[in-house]
Amino acid sequence: MTKLVPSKKIGEHVITQPIERPSNDFLNSILGVQFDVLDHGFVRVVDYMGSDTSVVQAARTSYGKGTKQISQDKGLIRYLLRHRHTSCFEMAEIKFHIKLPIFIARQWIRHRTANVNEYSARYSLMEEEFYIPEPENLAVQSTDNKQGRGDVLTTEQAQRVRQILIDDAERCYKDYSEMVDEEGDIRLARELARINLTLNSYTQWYWKIDLHNLLHFLTLRIDSHAQYEIRIYAEILGEILKGWCPIVYDAWMDYRVHALELSAQHVNMLKKALLFVMSEKPELLDSPKGMSKREHMEFINKFELEDYFIDGEKK
Amino acid sequence: MTKLVPSKKIGEHVITQPIERPSNDFLNSILGVQFDVLDHGFVRVVDYMGSDTSVVQAARTSYGKGTKQISQDKGLIRYLLRHRHTSCFEMAEIKFHIKLPIFIARQWIRHRTANVNEYSARYSLMEEEFYIPEPENLAVQSTDNKQGRGDVLTTEQAQRVRQILIDDAERCYKDYSEMVDEEGDIRLARELARINLTLNSYTQWYWKIDLHNLLHFLTLRIDSHAQYEIRIYAEILGEILKGWCPIVYDAWMDYRVHALELSAQHVNMLKKALLFVMSEKPELLDSPKGMSKREHMEFINKFELEDYFIDGEKK
Amino acid sequence: MTKLVPSKKIGEHVITQPIERPSNDFLNSILGVQFDVLDHGFVRVVDYMGSDTSVVQAARTSYGKGTKQISQDKGLIRYLLRHRHTSCFEMAEIKFHIKLPIFIARQWIRHRTANVNEYSARYSLMEEEFYIPEPENLAVQSTDNKQGRGDVLTTEQAQRVRQILIDDAERCYKDYSEMVDEEGDIRLARELARINLTLNSYTQWYWKIDLHNLLHFLTLRIDSHAQYEIRIYAEILGEILKGWCPIVYDAWMDYRVHALELSAQHVNMLKKALLFVMSEKPELLDSPKGMSKREHMEFINKFELEDYFIDGEKK
Amino acid sequence: MTKLVPSKKIGEHVITQPIERPSNDFLNSILGVQFDVLDHGFVRVVDYMGSDTSVVQAARTSYGKGTKQISQDKGLIRYLLRHRHTSCFEMAEIKFHIKLPIFIARQWIRHRTANVNEYSARYSLMEEEFYIPEPENLAVQSTDNKQGRGDVLTTEQAQRVRQILIDDAERCYKDYSEMVDEEGDIRLARELARINLTLNSYTQWYWKIDLHNLLHFLTLRIDSHAQYEIRIYAEILGEILKGWCPIVYDAWMDYRVHALELSAQHVNMLKKALLFVMSEKPELLDSPKGMSKREHMEFINKFELEDYFIDGEKK
Repeated sequence: MTKLVPSKKIGEHVITQPIERPSNDFLNSILGVQFDVLDHGFVRVVDYMGSDTSVVQAARTSYGKGTKQISQDKGLIRYLLRHRHTSCFEMAEIKFHIKLPIFIARQWIRHRTANVNEYSARYSLMEEEFYIPEPENLAVQSTDNKQGRGDVLTTEQAQRVRQILIDDAERCYKDYSEMVDEEGDIRLARELARINLTLNSYTQWYWKIDLHNLLHFLTLRIDSHAQYEIRIYAEILGEILKGWCPIVYDAWMDYRVHALELSAQHVNMLKKALLFVMSEKPELLDSPKGMSKREHMEFINKFELEDYFIDGEKK
Repeated sequence: MTKLVPSKKIGEHVITQPIERPSNDFLNSILGVQFDVLDHGFVRVVDYMGSDTSVVQAARTSYGKGTKQISQDKGLIRYLLRHRHTSCFEMAEIKFHIKLPIFIARQWIRHRTANVNEYSARYSLMEEEFYIPEPENLAVQSTDNKQGRGDVLTTEQAQRVRQILIDDAERCYKDYSEMVDEEGDIRLARELARINLTLNSYTQWYWKIDLHNLLHFLTLRIDSHAQYEIRIYAEILGEILKGWCPIVYDAWMDYRVHALELSAQHVNMLKKALLFVMSEKPELLDSPKGMSKREHMEFINKFELEDYFIDGEKK
Repeated sequence: MTKLVPSKKIGEHVITQPIERPSNDFLNSILGVQFDVLDHGFVRVVDYMGSDTSVVQAARTSYGKGTKQISQDKGLIRYLLRHRHTSCFEMAEIKFHIKLPIFIARQWIRHRTANVNEYSARYSLMEEEFYIPEPENLAVQSTDNKQGRGDVLTTEQAQRVRQILIDDAERCYKDYSEMVDEEGDIRLARELARINLTLNSYTQWYWKIDLHNLLHFLTLRIDSHAQYEIRIYAEILGEILKGWCPIVYDAWMDYRVHALELSAQHVNMLKKALLFVMSEKPELLDSPKGMSKREHMEFINKFELEDYFIDGEKK
Repeated sequence: MTKLVPSKKIGEHVITQPIERPSNDFLNSILGVQFDVLDHGFVRVVDYMGSDTSVVQAARTSYGKGTKQISQDKGLIRYLLRHRHTSCFEMAEIKFHIKLPIFIARQWIRHRTANVNEYSARYSLMEEEFYIPEPENLAVQSTDNKQGRGDVLTTEQAQRVRQILIDDAERCYKDYSEMVDEEGDIRLARELARINLTLNSYTQWYWKIDLHNLLHFLTLRIDSHAQYEIRIYAEILGEILKGWCPIVYDAWMDYRVHALELSAQHVNMLKKALLFVMSEKPELLDSPKGMSKREHMEFINKFELEDYFIDGEKK
């Protein structure tokens, strides 16, 4: 095999001296710390690669010297997220240790672009831990949203449901334990005995994902239509993201979480309404404080109001 | 191995009698037909699986009996696309035979969720075909868009550029031919000789992709910021999509191509403007002809105008 | 948008006349037919694209005119599989409707390169169906394989286990039914009530996968170390593959299922042993009936016995 | 959003105190260092996550307490690689900055499970750098391997080829420069002018990949059938792997690079030959020095020689 020989040349674009490994104070301070979720679950960060700066570094590779123009890191990151230059956000990575109920793991695993190592119930024994919702999280079937929740149960109803869930999970676990008991009469194979457990049993896994796909996961799972029990995990991951990549977090809030998608029909309605606003009270469409000139122009262009503006200022 | 034995049981959800294979008249009529793109490129459909109905079929599997409520196929498809229930759109598939310049193939291949078999220039000889842009497609570097085109070249400039492109490509090809000539003096390995060809040389491949990822590809590549030479391929593929899955095509137009994404800041501006419209000329926000009541309510909810409406009608 | 206009040109590599859509008699004859698996599960083929010939077609695109040399389809397919030219096998696709226990669905879904639409228990009611293993499939925990099964249970043990599984699953389902009963006192949200069900409850999904990834799935899941309950599904899928792509099936059997991987250390042992055979009883290393000359030479080369052979014949 | 609150509980499996971030001395010492490849290319490591220990950590999560049995890290890693427990190897990640000729980039990008940010020639100017093979790497087309190289060219042939490659690349680049010259007469859009460049022009990218997919890439590209110009990159990456994950590297050498795959037919030949060896000179099949008992038994089992051995020892 070829031997590793460092280059003698010093080029414009290359660094021949060792560089420092990117490090992140926030993540370093919480590495390994367990954050509780639900009654027995948790989230722990176990390793990571890069941060906000990795996104910038990747973009500057793509655009070379040209990026001097949009040179501030924050503006660049916001531009990249707004315009879905997604590959730059694949350049940071994070690895979590997560404990979660199996019915949530089944939703979670549908995000395919991630790496997973799950605790094996074929190999090891399951612990006696299952998710029992708090009374305030027990609700009736929604009537207008076929896959959601409506009003919270009454105290009596909630107590009845919790008792059912506890009794059934405990009985199933007791029978599981008897079947796999190494000193017992049956010693059933673990891969068979575990099929007797309920879907609220806890499992755990290592889950590794890049920043782009983490944002995608969070956008879907932090949404109010996501099931509460996965949303609460997404919120913890969101808080970790906020400490890890604060600029990406803010951009994600503005351009995904609090952003809107409008259909062609909605856009047509708005165009007519905005022409009216433009004629009656145009100052409502001035650039608000904190919005960049570039972003204001994007608004103007989206609704085809260019005729009313010169260089970002109203005529 | 287990032998295949059809079931005797007839259940509510299963069909034990053979079903017809889904077929699509439009695609059947153009299967294998070559549609020209650029000067030497083409697109051909060579096989496919499913169509609009595959999306509906997948959704009904997910939602079981519950889907009776949103029972019309068209409404269901539009709902699924609007709310990004993407997995249903992965259930149809199409396979193309495409001939395209190498510099376009390099952009194209960045879409990773597809299957590709490319002509091998290590194995086989390249043909003498390269892309020379028509004069109307030759333009100066844009000054406001660092990666785009500005004004079209003058006739003289265009003629000069085309002559350069033709001369260089032909000379490189002639030298390539000499180097690989099996009767010649050199007989250089093909994998080496091809490195002398220019990036506008044509290659070809089979490209197979599911409907969801095709829509994603088209949304990005049909956009006005995409390079003209890939956009023209995307437009042909879009026409094929229109014939193949007309309902999905219309929904894609309304909810992707002609849709808008608004940032949190843009949304805030609009909310204020729409309150003004609501107070001064509320009829501008009535449901326009052709918009479903459900979609109109989504508009109302997005801009938090619920207080002005009862059951979809203005108070 | 561009209009679709078929090409007038007739080139060497292109077909401007419509071609027939590839069709497969075997799959056509079983499309929609339900094949039972386990006690309540099934497998149904609902659609497909291509077959053996799709692999050949893709390879000929890659290799152009050069493939005349290895021109027979069967030989080409076997060559491609043996040498892991995997992209050719991505060019055929199949879609199944599968009903399976949840604990098996959890193993199955780990194969990420596939498309899935699963029945939603947030949206729809689960049916009262759970997997209860037959007595002959109930076995004790293996002592030498930590994740496998050992001896079959005694009749009494098996009866006891089945009674536990039935009782617990039925009780959990009865409580589930009470909690979601639309006429009942609780009317708990379905997404919550389902967490009370046991892992042997049946779910169902549409599962679409390309031929390359299907082979990978089958190789892993048909293996004797796979859990019996997924292996039995893999065997049915294998039978379907055999009827659909008989040449690929045979090649897969020879180069994957019945093939061996040898470590460097194993190879060294074998080299020494084969030198001894070569000196004492060389006819044992003659090309056996049915092995192609090319494949025999590959054997000779793998064990570096070239010195003993001239042009495939022993000196 | 939920606030981050560290857990007070201390469980058996969780660590509530901060842990150290995994770090790797070898990679730290070469981070940012440029290793030259070919005439103008290079490889630099810019960031990473984990190492050998990440594989072990992931496996222990999966197998829980059960892994005490195969407790030594080295043995565990070798077992996991030998038996293709691939998900554990996805838990480490590495990011490279690579400069490479475009025709190599086209082969490289076919590995889809990686993250890439490439220098944009739509946005930025290309530099005047192209790959000119050294005379010893110029060879004629192979006659027995349709996609490979045969004998090295003569000095005169090599000089002729190099002169052609240099002349054509330089002319194309000169014309490219003229067309994009911001002070010139044409100022052609960069996205158009670059199509005049030859395929041996250098590009560069950031490339991030997990350890499992890196091994897969290296196995294919370090192979003698891979084109020399990508193999030389793979060899450098292999050297970096060796310093980063020495245990994985050795296992990869033994179970992939120097391993063999045998078809069913080859296996049958060997079984007969080994029966002969067993009867005539059985000591040739004793466990060689350095091979674990477990691995020797795997050999015995593969060739069905169990009858001749008791507990790993010959009868």
